[in-house]
Amino acid sequence: MRTMGGIDESVSPRARLAAEDEGITLDELRLATRNRGMPLEMLDHDLTPDGLHYLLVHYDIPTVDPSAWRLQVDGHVHQPLSLGLAELHDRAHVTHTVTMECAGNGRARLQPRPISQPWLDEAVGTAAWTGVPLAAVLAEARPRQGAVDVAFTGADHGVERGVEQDYQRGLSLDAASSPEVLLAHTMNGLPLPPQHGAPLRLIVPGWYGMAQVKWLTRITVLDRAFDGYQNVTAYRISTDPDDRGRPVTRIQPRALLRPPGFPDFQTRTRVLDVGRHRLTGRAWSGLATVDRVEVSVDGGSTWSDADLDPPLGRFAWRGWHWTWSVDRPGRYELCARASDADGNTQPLEQRWNRQAMANNHVQRVAVSVRPA
Amino acid sequence: MRTMGGIDESVSPRARLAAEDEGITLDELRLATRNRGMPLEMLDHDLTPDGLHYLLVHYDIPTVDPSAWRLQVDGHVHQPLSLGLAELHDRAHVTHTVTMECAGNGRARLQPRPISQPWLDEAVGTAAWTGVPLAAVLAEARPRQGAVDVAFTGADHGVERGVEQDYQRGLSLDAASSPEVLLAHTMNGLPLPPQHGAPLRLIVPGWYGMAQVKWLTRITVLDRAFDGYQNVTAYRISTDPDDRGRPVTRIQPRALLRPPGFPDFQTRTRVLDVGRHRLTGRAWSGLATVDRVEVSVDGGSTWSDADLDPPLGRFAWRGWHWTWSVDRPGRYELCARASDADGNTQPLEQRWNRQAMANNHVQRVAVSVRPA
Repeated sequence: MRTMGGIDESVSPRARLAAEDEGITLDELRLATRNRGMPLEMLDHDLTPDGLHYLLVHYDIPTVDPSAWRLQVDGHVHQPLSLGLAELHDRAHVTHTVTMECAGNGRARLQPRPISQPWLDEAVGTAAWTGVPLAAVLAEARPRQGAVDVAFTGADHGVERGVEQDYQRGLSLDAASSPEVLLAHTMNGLPLPPQHGAPLRLIVPGWYGMAQVKWLTRITVLDRAFDGYQNVTAYRISTDPDDRGRPVTRIQPRALLRPPGFPDFQTRTRVLDVGRHRLTGRAWSGLATVDRVEVSVDGGSTWSDADLDPPLGRFAWRGWHWTWSVDRPGRYELCARASDADGNTQPLEQRWNRQAMANNHVQRVAVSVRPA
Repeated sequence: MRTMGGIDESVSPRARLAAEDEGITLDELRLATRNRGMPLEMLDHDLTPDGLHYLLVHYDIPTVDPSAWRLQVDGHVHQPLSLGLAELHDRAHVTHTVTMECAGNGRARLQPRPISQPWLDEAVGTAAWTGVPLAAVLAEARPRQGAVDVAFTGADHGVERGVEQDYQRGLSLDAASSPEVLLAHTMNGLPLPPQHGAPLRLIVPGWYGMAQVKWLTRITVLDRAFDGYQNVTAYRISTDPDDRGRPVTRIQPRALLRPPGFPDFQTRTRVLDVGRHRLTGRAWSGLATVDRVEVSVDGGSTWSDADLDPPLGRFAWRGWHWTWSVDRPGRYELCARASDADGNTQPLEQRWNRQAMANNHVQRVAVSVRPA
């Protein structure tokens, strides 16, 4: 049995795939009852109501004393910085409306299923994030010649696949210098709540959630590629255990349909009456503007184009709607799929990979239509 | 196949128990990714931070327009009332700090496991609720001679075990007239968020969550016992399918331990170093004041008394702490159990019932202690 710093595999197991027909495990259930999806009826709102944004926390939510907290900016720079919260609040700030999605969204649908947080479709949310452009802080620190990557360290501490760590992610200096990247202190007009990274977090619009480091304590400029666990081991797209594959970066296009009608408590199957129904939803892509949403009422056999609402912003989901006239009672499977201006679209079949990352297969909503 | 109003059992199945060794099902996972537990590290806080209180929603979260909303008070009364939100805000209000728990907390640990929302230990939260005493509103409506029960109707609509319904619960007129029962419009100093019942919900301190009707639209005084689904079919304690059993009412005592150290991502097992550790937690009972909390570090074989913090309030959890000196590395199972002034205590073994209601068996926290 492998032991690292007194932590063995019974505490921190290696990655594995569920056996065929293996139900959701206790490990997965523990994660599902802690982490939170966005209830899909909240697709009605441009901004996800406070407390209902999806949430994935790798370890524990740390309680950070904002008066004692400081952000260190160091490493391969000419001018290391140490910034308190008041200093950050005094700086010029901007607000971006950003749709954020967990890179593991859809994982629990995969066959075989990687054992981890078992998302279905709901690991998403949209918020207005306000903060200081990271580029301005980096410019003040003045990266030295030869700077390559920037590492972001959070206050959350734990162990994962045997590796004890503070949560830490790297970005290339180029990506980190992009003008939309924020050090956010405010969410929807209020100070960050503890679960979203108080007092300061990184916001990298268009990227999956793993890049949005919460509870930031340190920003370190590196003269080499960042080789931390969350970039090099986790958040990789690979089908072969001997191949590290490629990193997870920007959000693939996805559309979600607001489940219509009313639900059954247990199965969440939707009940509708025959007649005309306005189907609505949201669609987003971190790669390019969403320019098409299609809807299917027969499980993906045939598709119709939905009407798109005006964009909310460059990094936010886009509303869409389509009217369904149904006169025959019975069971239907509703689907929606998004495409973006770069020609990316959603697959009907899974794009399986060992960590179930960036899985933007099409949502399927079970509906029962009853007679008038 | 039973069909009620076009809704058959494939949409809305009967209650069932999981087969022996049946993993968590897709139906349960759908519920677990929608509903939300309180991350147990939030036991550090007297009031659960906004957005982290547990949440169970039977159907969809309704979006209620507060300007169009009115509360109807009718039925077996001399003076039916129709109250707008501004009128309710203008009335004398009180605030109670209340610990609320789902009646199904602990369900997923039961053997055999009833298929429903699969809570482990985390279906709890504490908030300061502000609103109008229900007794004052009932007094104004003047129940007629012979009034027995009061029915509370929410705006949330769905189907459950084949029964289409607005969520509705009854209370005896006596219980409803108790001075601590509130029509709450404010949670932790802010207007109720949508997921906690905006614009108005019932708060019945000391009772499990099913009594705390959200999105209230109507209060109806009855001259007979309320016989709605959520009182007569759901939320019953019974071991025999042919016996309706007794209703779920007040919260049984429970202690929860704030998991110490740091976690493994997947197993949530805690890692600690040898040495002295201050273990902390909270304990509550809806039946009487918590007057004892015991801690075990050997899975319940031996127990030590913890120190109790001063009470936060009559209906709120109570903090406790105990120092653990551990000098031997290895695996431990930490437990805590509460007792109240009425002599109620927590069982080590499950008190099995068909709906897994009011199950206050003892929490077990897996800990790995490593060498210094």
